[in-house]
Amino acid sequence: MSESKDLHGNAPDKSDVALLLIDIISDFEFEDGEKLFKYALPMARKLADLKKKAKRAGVPVIYVNDNFGKWQSNFRFLLDHALDKKVRGSKIAELLKFDESDYFVLKPKHSGFYSTTLEVLLEHPESKTLILTGVTADICILFTANDAYLRDYNLVVPSDCVAAVEKKENGHALKYIERVLKADTRPSSKINFNKLKKDK
Amino acid sequence: MSESKDLHGNAPDKSDVALLLIDIISDFEFEDGEKLFKYALPMARKLADLKKKAKRAGVPVIYVNDNFGKWQSNFRFLLDHALDKKVRGSKIAELLKFDESDYFVLKPKHSGFYSTTLEVLLEHPESKTLILTGVTADICILFTANDAYLRDYNLVVPSDCVAAVEKKENGHALKYIERVLKADTRPSSKINFNKLKKDK
Amino acid sequence: MSESKDLHGNAPDKSDVALLLIDIISDFEFEDGEKLFKYALPMARKLADLKKKAKRAGVPVIYVNDNFGKWQSNFRFLLDHALDKKVRGSKIAELLKFDESDYFVLKPKHSGFYSTTLEVLLEHPESKTLILTGVTADICILFTANDAYLRDYNLVVPSDCVAAVEKKENGHALKYIERVLKADTRPSSKINFNKLKKDK
Amino acid sequence: MSESKDLHGNAPDKSDVALLLIDIISDFEFEDGEKLFKYALPMARKLADLKKKAKRAGVPVIYVNDNFGKWQSNFRFLLDHALDKKVRGSKIAELLKFDESDYFVLKPKHSGFYSTTLEVLLEHPESKTLILTGVTADICILFTANDAYLRDYNLVVPSDCVAAVEKKENGHALKYIERVLKADTRPSSKINFNKLKKDK
Repeated sequence: MSESKDLHGNAPDKSDVALLLIDIISDFEFEDGEKLFKYALPMARKLADLKKKAKRAGVPVIYVNDNFGKWQSNFRFLLDHALDKKVRGSKIAELLKFDESDYFVLKPKHSGFYSTTLEVLLEHPESKTLILTGVTADICILFTANDAYLRDYNLVVPSDCVAAVEKKENGHALKYIERVLKADTRPSSKINFNKLKKDK
Repeated sequence: MSESKDLHGNAPDKSDVALLLIDIISDFEFEDGEKLFKYALPMARKLADLKKKAKRAGVPVIYVNDNFGKWQSNFRFLLDHALDKKVRGSKIAELLKFDESDYFVLKPKHSGFYSTTLEVLLEHPESKTLILTGVTADICILFTANDAYLRDYNLVVPSDCVAAVEKKENGHALKYIERVLKADTRPSSKINFNKLKKDK
Repeated sequence: MSESKDLHGNAPDKSDVALLLIDIISDFEFEDGEKLFKYALPMARKLADLKKKAKRAGVPVIYVNDNFGKWQSNFRFLLDHALDKKVRGSKIAELLKFDESDYFVLKPKHSGFYSTTLEVLLEHPESKTLILTGVTADICILFTANDAYLRDYNLVVPSDCVAAVEKKENGHALKYIERVLKADTRPSSKINFNKLKKDK
Repeated sequence: MSESKDLHGNAPDKSDVALLLIDIISDFEFEDGEKLFKYALPMARKLADLKKKAKRAGVPVIYVNDNFGKWQSNFRFLLDHALDKKVRGSKIAELLKFDESDYFVLKPKHSGFYSTTLEVLLEHPESKTLILTGVTADICILFTANDAYLRDYNLVVPSDCVAAVEKKENGHALKYIERVLKADTRPSSKINFNKLKKDK
């Protein structure tokens, strides 16, 4: 029933770069959630700016997120839950509001590439460079970055757009990503989307 | 951020068998949609009975479906669109109404296993036998059946619970699935869930 | 330890087209081996010509083959066993002798793409078109063709360069591959490598 | 052509545990090869003892190794090259000699699971626990460990059976593997195969 052209029609247009927001949509009401939130909130403010710049530059924005409810690929439920003012994460979900021109991929495990549609989705914009942002630097970002590196993507992981429960682990993860995965970790304010497009 | 236990908590309970409904949620308003619908409607009636029996037997029911809108893992949009009385497929979507205890996996291509969460989702019930149903027998069912066979599942493909645009191709596909993939193709009325559980 | 450039250095050069020989290296000493051999031998003669043309055109030739011995990725053992004059398959192994400029991928199951290195290997020549040949048309060729189609390759399956145990199943498989996977099934003598390169 | 039973026949027997030797077969004649070799040689001595204990306990031993020559799945070539007394790595290749009852998987990239047969091979012994050893702790071991963790394996990474170019990075990697992937990193002398089998 599925024609490749169907997917093509619904996938991002050509873009050398794609921006991924990892595990941003969350209630932050888990163990260590408060600790993580302390770093995640200022990070989310930077990321909100970066997302705006990305949209202006025509760069597709893809939310890659854990699924918390029953496995029903129902991201609306996730969004509504995280936007509920009673949960800690609502401030972040508000800052980084999903809009209808964004994309959404649910992931069942730590890596955005493992048992998800991300790889097929990224074929359509033919992006060569992925900007990875979100939480946590040392787990879901690192797993996703490793998998992206195996697939020959150029990586940008802006140091002020990722966070972890422990500041020290955030730093270790960034250093690893820079040293081993050859990622560019300059802060978000230094990212020039037009240059990234040309550099591919 | 994702703990395996999160997924576990939200995935189906142990069950030797799982029932998959492939590409059932659709408006059937595509080329050949009318031709397919002629066979799909009576098939859907049989399948509605089979689904009821499965639920009574505690067998998880998983909708594995093409994504028609923008890639946003938004199955609610799919359901609402297919349930709209103005589209041909609404009768089938009504007969096979998704309920909150069912599971949903969006697929971007023909096989339910390709770039989807199906494989990880099926690890949790530890099912050894998959019952494949839906449309079309010669494309998405066959692709999914091949991929299931590669992964060592026992296959049941009830001959009255699949349909294709051409009756002849439906027959060829069923014969292939029986001969090469060693599937049981007995009609749905002959399926005994308790026996399937014991036979595993 | 592995640098991507290592693999790059050892993989095929850029080529729009790649020629795959599937399960050609075999003793043909299995059930139905004699029946299959009757069709496989004349097929192998055509395929030997096609391979020569491919080499002249600079098209990489990749043997994708079942592993018969212990899982040790030891293709030499396979080759030596199949070349042994005491086994039926030696005539075919001789006609389609592996040479040092060819590539070899061992597969554990029916599809050349399932749990193998084929997908990564094909990234390097950046081939868009795969010519699939070998045995059997209705099993390993069909499984591999389906998986190639999911990955958006253009397919060429020359009707005289595949064989099956049953002539009828060979015909059905070719028709399926043509109708559903949009493959070009013209006989090998009509394949023009220069044109395939331009048509990509 | 490939029957699942064929693979079964050639894959390891049931074993709750499997021992993986990662990138051990190498000439160590690359940049930083001398630095790595300094740590890798004493590590290889410990690993040789561990391998002996594993064999006595009936635990399958799987070499998971980069491919250096042309992509021809030809592990004999690798072995012969690494055993050549003129190359630095020959001492290690000698200590950890591959024998006919071991298994071999060639990997094209950093993770042993990426585009290889490892996942399918491990289905046969139904191992739940993987002991990861070899080089380098912070790259191929870490990538493989992450991928094993995604697949729900219990991990054992004996601290004296891995090595890296930089001692500090070796330590960081071990800590990460312990903290995030919940691996047991006790030294090899403390590994009790019988207990590992019961603990599964």
